Amino acid sequence: MKREQLTEKILDIKREKGWSWKYICEEIGGMSPILVTGALLGQMKLVKPLAKKAATLFGLSELEEKMLNEVPMRGTTMPPTDPLIYRFYELILVNGPAIKALIEDEFGDGIMSAIDFNMDIAREANEKGDRVAISMSGKFLPYKYYGAEQGIPQLGYKED
Amino acid sequence: MKREQLTEKILDIKREKGWSWKYICEEIGGMSPILVTGALLGQMKLVKPLAKKAATLFGLSELEEKMLNEVPMRGTTMPPTDPLIYRFYELILVNGPAIKALIEDEFGDGIMSAIDFNMDIAREANEKGDRVAISMSGKFLPYKYYGAEQGIPQLGYKED
Amino acid sequence: MKREQLTEKILDIKREKGWSWKYICEEIGGMSPILVTGALLGQMKLVKPLAKKAATLFGLSELEEKMLNEVPMRGTTMPPTDPLIYRFYELILVNGPAIKALIEDEFGDGIMSAIDFNMDIAREANEKGDRVAISMSGKFLPYKYYGAEQGIPQLGYKED
Amino acid sequence: MKREQLTEKILDIKREKGWSWKYICEEIGGMSPILVTGALLGQMKLVKPLAKKAATLFGLSELEEKMLNEVPMRGTTMPPTDPLIYRFYELILVNGPAIKALIEDEFGDGIMSAIDFNMDIAREANEKGDRVAISMSGKFLPYKYYGAEQGIPQLGYKED
Amino acid sequence: MKREQLTEKILDIKREKGWSWKYICEEIGGMSPILVTGALLGQMKLVKPLAKKAATLFGLSELEEKMLNEVPMRGTTMPPTDPLIYRFYELILVNGPAIKALIEDEFGDGIMSAIDFNMDIAREANEKGDRVAISMSGKFLPYKYYGAEQGIPQLGYKED
Amino acid sequence: MKREQLTEKILDIKREKGWSWKYICEEIGGMSPILVTGALLGQMKLVKPLAKKAATLFGLSELEEKMLNEVPMRGTTMPPTDPLIYRFYELILVNGPAIKALIEDEFGDGIMSAIDFNMDIAREANEKGDRVAISMSGKFLPYKYYGAEQGIPQLGYKED
Amino acid sequence: MKREQLTEKILDIKREKGWSWKYICEEIGGMSPILVTGALLGQMKLVKPLAKKAATLFGLSELEEKMLNEVPMRGTTMPPTDPLIYRFYELILVNGPAIKALIEDEFGDGIMSAIDFNMDIAREANEKGDRVAISMSGKFLPYKYYGAEQGIPQLGYKED
Amino acid sequence: MKREQLTEKILDIKREKGWSWKYICEEIGGMSPILVTGALLGQMKLVKPLAKKAATLFGLSELEEKMLNEVPMRGTTMPPTDPLIYRFYELILVNGPAIKALIEDEFGDGIMSAIDFNMDIAREANEKGDRVAISMSGKFLPYKYYGAEQGIPQLGYKED
Amino acid sequence: MKREQLTEKILDIKREKGWSWKYICEEIGGMSPILVTGALLGQMKLVKPLAKKAATLFGLSELEEKMLNEVPMRGTTMPPTDPLIYRFYELILVNGPAIKALIEDEFGDGIMSAIDFNMDIAREANEKGDRVAISMSGKFLPYKYYGAEQGIPQLGYKED
Amino acid sequence: MKREQLTEKILDIKREKGWSWKYICEEIGGMSPILVTGALLGQMKLVKPLAKKAATLFGLSELEEKMLNEVPMRGTTMPPTDPLIYRFYELILVNGPAIKALIEDEFGDGIMSAIDFNMDIAREANEKGDRVAISMSGKFLPYKYYGAEQGIPQLGYKED
Repeated sequence: MKREQLTEKILDIKREKGWSWKYICEEIGGMSPILVTGALLGQMKLVKPLAKKAATLFGLSELEEKMLNEVPMRGTTMPPTDPLIYRFYELILVNGPAIKALIEDEFGDGIMSAIDFNMDIAREANEKGDRVAISMSGKFLPYKYYGAEQGIPQLGYKED
Repeated sequence: MKREQLTEKILDIKREKGWSWKYICEEIGGMSPILVTGALLGQMKLVKPLAKKAATLFGLSELEEKMLNEVPMRGTTMPPTDPLIYRFYELILVNGPAIKALIEDEFGDGIMSAIDFNMDIAREANEKGDRVAISMSGKFLPYKYYGAEQGIPQLGYKED
Repeated sequence: MKREQLTEKILDIKREKGWSWKYICEEIGGMSPILVTGALLGQMKLVKPLAKKAATLFGLSELEEKMLNEVPMRGTTMPPTDPLIYRFYELILVNGPAIKALIEDEFGDGIMSAIDFNMDIAREANEKGDRVAISMSGKFLPYKYYGAEQGIPQLGYKED
Repeated sequence: MKREQLTEKILDIKREKGWSWKYICEEIGGMSPILVTGALLGQMKLVKPLAKKAATLFGLSELEEKMLNEVPMRGTTMPPTDPLIYRFYELILVNGPAIKALIEDEFGDGIMSAIDFNMDIAREANEKGDRVAISMSGKFLPYKYYGAEQGIPQLGYKED
Repeated sequence: MKREQLTEKILDIKREKGWSWKYICEEIGGMSPILVTGALLGQMKLVKPLAKKAATLFGLSELEEKMLNEVPMRGTTMPPTDPLIYRFYELILVNGPAIKALIEDEFGDGIMSAIDFNMDIAREANEKGDRVAISMSGKFLPYKYYGAEQGIPQLGYKED
Repeated sequence: MKREQLTEKILDIKREKGWSWKYICEEIGGMSPILVTGALLGQMKLVKPLAKKAATLFGLSELEEKMLNEVPMRGTTMPPTDPLIYRFYELILVNGPAIKALIEDEFGDGIMSAIDFNMDIAREANEKGDRVAISMSGKFLPYKYYGAEQGIPQLGYKED
Repeated sequence: MKREQLTEKILDIKREKGWSWKYICEEIGGMSPILVTGALLGQMKLVKPLAKKAATLFGLSELEEKMLNEVPMRGTTMPPTDPLIYRFYELILVNGPAIKALIEDEFGDGIMSAIDFNMDIAREANEKGDRVAISMSGKFLPYKYYGAEQGIPQLGYKED
Repeated sequence: MKREQLTEKILDIKREKGWSWKYICEEIGGMSPILVTGALLGQMKLVKPLAKKAATLFGLSELEEKMLNEVPMRGTTMPPTDPLIYRFYELILVNGPAIKALIEDEFGDGIMSAIDFNMDIAREANEKGDRVAISMSGKFLPYKYYGAEQGIPQLGYKED
Repeated sequence: MKREQLTEKILDIKREKGWSWKYICEEIGGMSPILVTGALLGQMKLVKPLAKKAATLFGLSELEEKMLNEVPMRGTTMPPTDPLIYRFYELILVNGPAIKALIEDEFGDGIMSAIDFNMDIAREANEKGDRVAISMSGKFLPYKYYGAEQGIPQLGYKED
Repeated sequence: MKREQLTEKILDIKREKGWSWKYICEEIGGMSPILVTGALLGQMKLVKPLAKKAATLFGLSELEEKMLNEVPMRGTTMPPTDPLIYRFYELILVNGPAIKALIEDEFGDGIMSAIDFNMDIAREANEKGDRVAISMSGKFLPYKYYGAEQGIPQLGYKED
């Protein structure tokens, strides 16, 4: 059994039942909808109690439930061909250098974690047309400058 | 003169003066720092009053000021090799399908605009380590289902 | 069930019946032929009443009808290998910079929307050989220059 | 001398003079603005009288005028990274199969010429926001089914 | 049914019967062998009378006969990995600029059509080893320089 | 000195003198115009007497003359972005499998040499529009099936 | 039936029987092991008597035997991901320019044929660790400089 | 000034002086040699006191010293063409799935940080030939499963 | 039977049994877990006694056991899309030049073998968060500078 | 100074002097011509005494001599566009799987080293046309199956 076969089965059931992702995420609960949806689409794992709830909701077998609890081989094809996903890709294509400059300006040398990371998507009412509001929050991880002492991890300089 | 030559000159002056991007954006003001920084890095245009302020700040020539007011040929190399920028790329690589599913679930068929779009980067204090908080807001643009009448744009169906 | 399986089934029925796309689009009606054909080929969604008509015409199951009403993962392989499609690709390859220059000259910084967009294809009689006439119309979306006030989307400068 | 050096020089003069493309195309005249602009950007050739006018307008040398009259090595980088140009690329990415289906449905096996081709860009006033109207017209070129007689080009079948 | 499944079936029958392409093309007749072979390999369409002959020869079903009469999604993987096909690719790789220079020198700005095009392959006896003689003939299509009058295709200048 | 610098110099002189390739090839003579033009564009070598003639014609230095007599690092960027060159690329993309099938049908397992190869380009008058006639002739090189005797090249089987 | 299905079947039988390639090549005999193995892996053709022997050895059907006698669509994925194959790729990556320089230094402008070509692999005993000894021999094919006389292939200059 | 120009200057001085990297890293000290060397090659930043030492050692200007203290746009071309670097690439190519399996087996869902990371390279004496010993240590970062409460980062489940 | 089918079967059994990789590697024993896991995932071979143990553990057929003892066609898709594997890729992307400089500084011209190579992964307890400790050791292989005597491998110079 | 600038200078001097590679390699001596030529083309290092000889021969500065003694960043662009180099690439493309099968058949799991490697190129007189004879010899490196004892490299099984 491959993860994409499980994803296809889940989408078949969702279609048949006429469920929305919102409904599914509320039924499974406990984590951000982006994570629950991601897991059902084969990009995240569901922790055990949620995998159990998902299995009950979709009527999955025990093995399928276990598979939902596994870490998948993550990743999709890039560049994205789908226009909705491409717009996010374009935001990095165009704003990448400015984002890098401003984060390093404020935090120093490091990255925003994509692992200790949270994202929410919400509707933002607006009379000129509603907006998609996305808030992301990732832990800043500074590049560590370890010292040269063989075998003894040690921070170098605190300064800048 | 090419835009990247102007960018290199601006970075040389910034280095010599020891300015931060924060300082530069406050001096030029009037727009989101992500846009001002992006323009100085060659990815956005500065509207005329801001181009004037930037030219004064950096001691640019009249032609360089005009170039800052031009729309550049946007874009950078993908996939990004820089780790800070790559983390954003990875967020799309992994979460793209879930983002697509949830936005369409809430808004229907369409995209979040990357043009009528706003982004802010902020520091989020956190005792386990400060976080990079990014808020984005883009107008939702529904796919338009135009009717078949030759030459007369016309919406098809409102329903879903 | 995957969308390409549905597309293959639809093409099998079309072949068996000997229908033209013109006939199919007239039967389903209500939207531009480019959208109806695109949906049947797996690149667009059909709104519900049209999905119903399509299902009746092709004798599809209820699940297949629902799938036609779903937003597909859009996109095809690029660069196109088919000569007909490649000619359009080439038009951008060669004329892209001039198109960008002229649109920005007339409208300022922004894009022509590919979402709020309409396209028609028609035969243009010509004694030297008939021509393919394509008319496209997309809403111009100006780049928005939002102000720096934290959390409060605000336009910066109206000027150019 | 390379064509891109000439393009850079022309853009420097345009910037210094503060000319729009519209003004430049009216001064040079005689051909579609998309062709004149394309030639000045290094993708088209200017026929001799127009090359002369362009040389006068921009104060070019005789050799530069001759270069404008040469056929350039055409083409730009794909996929386009600039959002304005990308939207056109996306239109093919998404609508390519439908365009192919409808043109072949109407015209039979063949292509729309990208060489015997005309394109106009215009502003279309619209109370919901002005639109970019693009009209294209290319000669339909049917695939020729030549017969097998050695060395004597001969059409095979008229039928379909 | 997909076109490659039909191609595989045709190759299976050809193998079983022990037919050469020469024999097959003579049986079907009416068009250049390069077109008939191309159609059976899924790159060209067979006009109806030839599709009928091919169906009789190979014992195909009515639906398969109809598929042979359809325009396929043309194209193969590039760069070619097969040495025989690669040599042709290499001829363009190496001689492309010279071919361009000489055609434009003789004909002006334009292309040799790959659509109104004929090709023959023949054996050329030679005592140092027989040669593959390929003759190609494509209509020259000049770039059209349409005038700027809105909506009225009009040639600009005849001169070069 | 790099070969592309020499090519640029030669093109500058050609432009200044207003020479056609036809004139240049006649002046240098002795080999196919496709080879002479290719050498001046940096893809072929000129044998010594021709390099001397070319040097005299263009007023080149002794070192530049020697460089024309060197074998260059051949090759250009693929896929070609220039429409004229692309049409040849497309001919292989579409007809590659048929060309392979027909050559192997006639000659057996092997290739048409791209090295022991000749090509001519000519104008073919035609009342429906002149045609570009290209004749190519390359030696057929059969795959050799050497025997297994260690170190002693030996043909295996003559049969097919 | 596809060639890779035949390859998979042959590998299944080889595994079941526990045969080495050496044993298989000796049983089939008549050609270099590199050619016989290549044919069984789908990259070469077996001449008829050898295809017969292979069919007997592996118990193949008549159609499978015929397929072994066909010229396959050659080629594998590049760059190679397998370390053993990659080392050969790297040899070209690093030594390509030197190989080109030395062959042209000795033989003039041309190539080593990859078609009229022989290769042997042997074990070379060595006290520091045995070595893989590979000897290759390919016919040198000089670039032919055909003369300009229309239609009459003719060598240009013998000199260098 | 670009970072690669500074790198080239540093390498010129290193060559002239005949210094080893070991000597340079001891002179600058304070951090792992992999970081100091990386910074001098343009992939890392040097904290201020080390940038000062480096500037003194190499006789750099004040601006060059400041540039060494800047975070560079990191990254190099992939896949690596240099054999030494390629071997590391190959280790991931071959062992990537096993590394993923074993880390997740031991730590759960997450990654080894490439930012809070330390690496040492040492010589390991071995009578069969000395070995390169590389020790790496990166903080394990677990994927965080944040809860669905709008705007309030919150861990979901501790369990697995 | 293909190796990936065997891998899928092994993962199905592992899931059903609820085994960890640690348990599996201890049961099979005898080699580094990275090798045993790699073999079960289709990237390494298991020597016969281990293949037997693995077959017993997973209840494989005799043919499947033989396949585990075969050298697979190694390699996976690059760049890696999975974040865990990507971090290792990034380490090379960023540190490749420094690793090359330091190894050559210490060992001279050569590489660290990826074949005579050992790797261990361990948990390193750390109060700020446990770390992934990876130790690698590969034999240094110096580039051999063989002498020019035809056919007699001979080392050139010992000196550096 | 960059290595390619040194290469260009060396080629300029070689051209001016009219030297062959054979002459140059004999003058420098001491190593295989493929290594000496490779070093002068920027892909290998010359050991000190040879770098000195090369510097004397070409009249290089002391710094240029030192650069010839440095290990370069190896590698060239792939796939090769030059026909001579491409033929070698094709040999791997077509014969890669057979080479892998036969080497593993004879030696077991491992690779032929591209580092402890020797190559000679020679002319092989042949009445049907001289041949390029290439002999390569690389040490066989078996994949090492290290044991699981933490930190103690240890061979696993000798058996196969």
